[in-house]
Amino acid sequence: MTYCVAMRLDAGLVFLSDSRTNAGVDAVATARKMTVFEEPGDRVMVLMTAGNLAISQAVRQILVEGRDEARSLWKARDMFEAATLVGDAVRQVHKRDAHALREAGIEFNVSMIFGGQVRGERARLFQLYAAGNFVEAMPENCYFQIGEAKYGKPIVDRVVQPSMPLGEAAKCALISMDSTLKSNISVGLPLDLLVYEADALRVTRFVNIDEKNAYFRMIRDTWGQRLRQVFGEISDPQWDASLPAEFPLARQGEADRWGQPVRARRRRPGTPA
Amino acid sequence: MTYCVAMRLDAGLVFLSDSRTNAGVDAVATARKMTVFEEPGDRVMVLMTAGNLAISQAVRQILVEGRDEARSLWKARDMFEAATLVGDAVRQVHKRDAHALREAGIEFNVSMIFGGQVRGERARLFQLYAAGNFVEAMPENCYFQIGEAKYGKPIVDRVVQPSMPLGEAAKCALISMDSTLKSNISVGLPLDLLVYEADALRVTRFVNIDEKNAYFRMIRDTWGQRLRQVFGEISDPQWDASLPAEFPLARQGEADRWGQPVRARRRRPGTPA
Repeated sequence: MTYCVAMRLDAGLVFLSDSRTNAGVDAVATARKMTVFEEPGDRVMVLMTAGNLAISQAVRQILVEGRDEARSLWKARDMFEAATLVGDAVRQVHKRDAHALREAGIEFNVSMIFGGQVRGERARLFQLYAAGNFVEAMPENCYFQIGEAKYGKPIVDRVVQPSMPLGEAAKCALISMDSTLKSNISVGLPLDLLVYEADALRVTRFVNIDEKNAYFRMIRDTWGQRLRQVFGEISDPQWDASLPAEFPLARQGEADRWGQPVRARRRRPGTPA
Repeated sequence: MTYCVAMRLDAGLVFLSDSRTNAGVDAVATARKMTVFEEPGDRVMVLMTAGNLAISQAVRQILVEGRDEARSLWKARDMFEAATLVGDAVRQVHKRDAHALREAGIEFNVSMIFGGQVRGERARLFQLYAAGNFVEAMPENCYFQIGEAKYGKPIVDRVVQPSMPLGEAAKCALISMDSTLKSNISVGLPLDLLVYEADALRVTRFVNIDEKNAYFRMIRDTWGQRLRQVFGEISDPQWDASLPAEFPLARQGEADRWGQPVRARRRRPGTPA
């Protein structure tokens, strides 16, 4: 499986992907899921993929090979046109492979995050679906996740907002990834992290993170430890019936106000049913 | 949708369920997902269900009505036999409904957590599948989740262990639920929380939690706030290339050790491809 997350902030874009790929527990491998298209001073585009690896790689191949074509990521006027080209590549692969996949009982399953900046326009971020259509990140919903997204969603929901500095956003992405790694073995190191500063129009901050990376090791140790510390500092519920009003949890009797769950008792002789 | 979590600890059992049920965004309702079977001094059993509500309710009906049958939850010798009876009820509903559901293009989708204690035996916890088969919680894997389980899994993975006191475990279950509520609107209040003390053989701690519950309000406020505080206290990654060894993130150049992602540049005249 895969986990990728990207954020569109006022200060730029953050992209983070894992590298675990598997087709059954005995076929676990590492594959890069991040592709960077760069023309320094003119454009930077980043593509991250999840789903069927063969489809993802076929789409990437089309986009990378297309550099001399009449329509390509390097010639797109803006990010919207570029996203359309990515969608077209998905549809091209669909046209070629979907029938054979269906014959084999395999779903045409791919999802992508695509973002970047073309000179003259602001940085933009899109999520693409298997049909080649896409949506764009907005200030109200400034991040996208693909793959095993649920484990790492709560922390992103709690802290990310467009005004966040890039460093904090990168930290948030890494914590979100850490939660996912902790709870799902199908997502694995190394990670690719790319932080794009708005208007830089070149890649200045990219790092591949493995077990030896000191910062990510600090995140892994500190976050789990501080989480347990905060957990310990929050008081446990009190059930002592002798305490009056300040009851942290409503007493059992009070629950009747909202209705008890079905509570079935064995009927005894002489007891009303 | 649904989120239910239960834990088997040395000190007893904790059960927590939400109450949101929906069949499309215009059909959102509240339904209890926890059923308690109690014969004080002899046995306490708790069933929580996720999946198709009609199937869940049919299973519950069979189990509740079965109290005067030759084989019933009230007569089961132990929790294993009781879990078998729950599985049998699932199979009975499957036999009656699965064909009609398949005709309608609906999957026979149900999952359950079932636990409790019968006098003379320790407290036990099971997870049941749609086929009526089941697995039991073990010290190495002492909790089960059904429904929208992924959002709330990281915190449980980090803190729960069999030696944990019941109050702490209840707190953990509520925090796990809070993360789920925050990230998924298909899970909703009120909640049912039942904490069973080993060998009590009766229900002493049950509460229905809604928006007004002071303890859960405290959890919701405090957890999110402390999470953001801890997040703020962890240092951001530093990319300053002038810093030497203590680099939190490997420098871009160093990434080459582990291989760069595909980085495609436009070919320029005279530049090697």
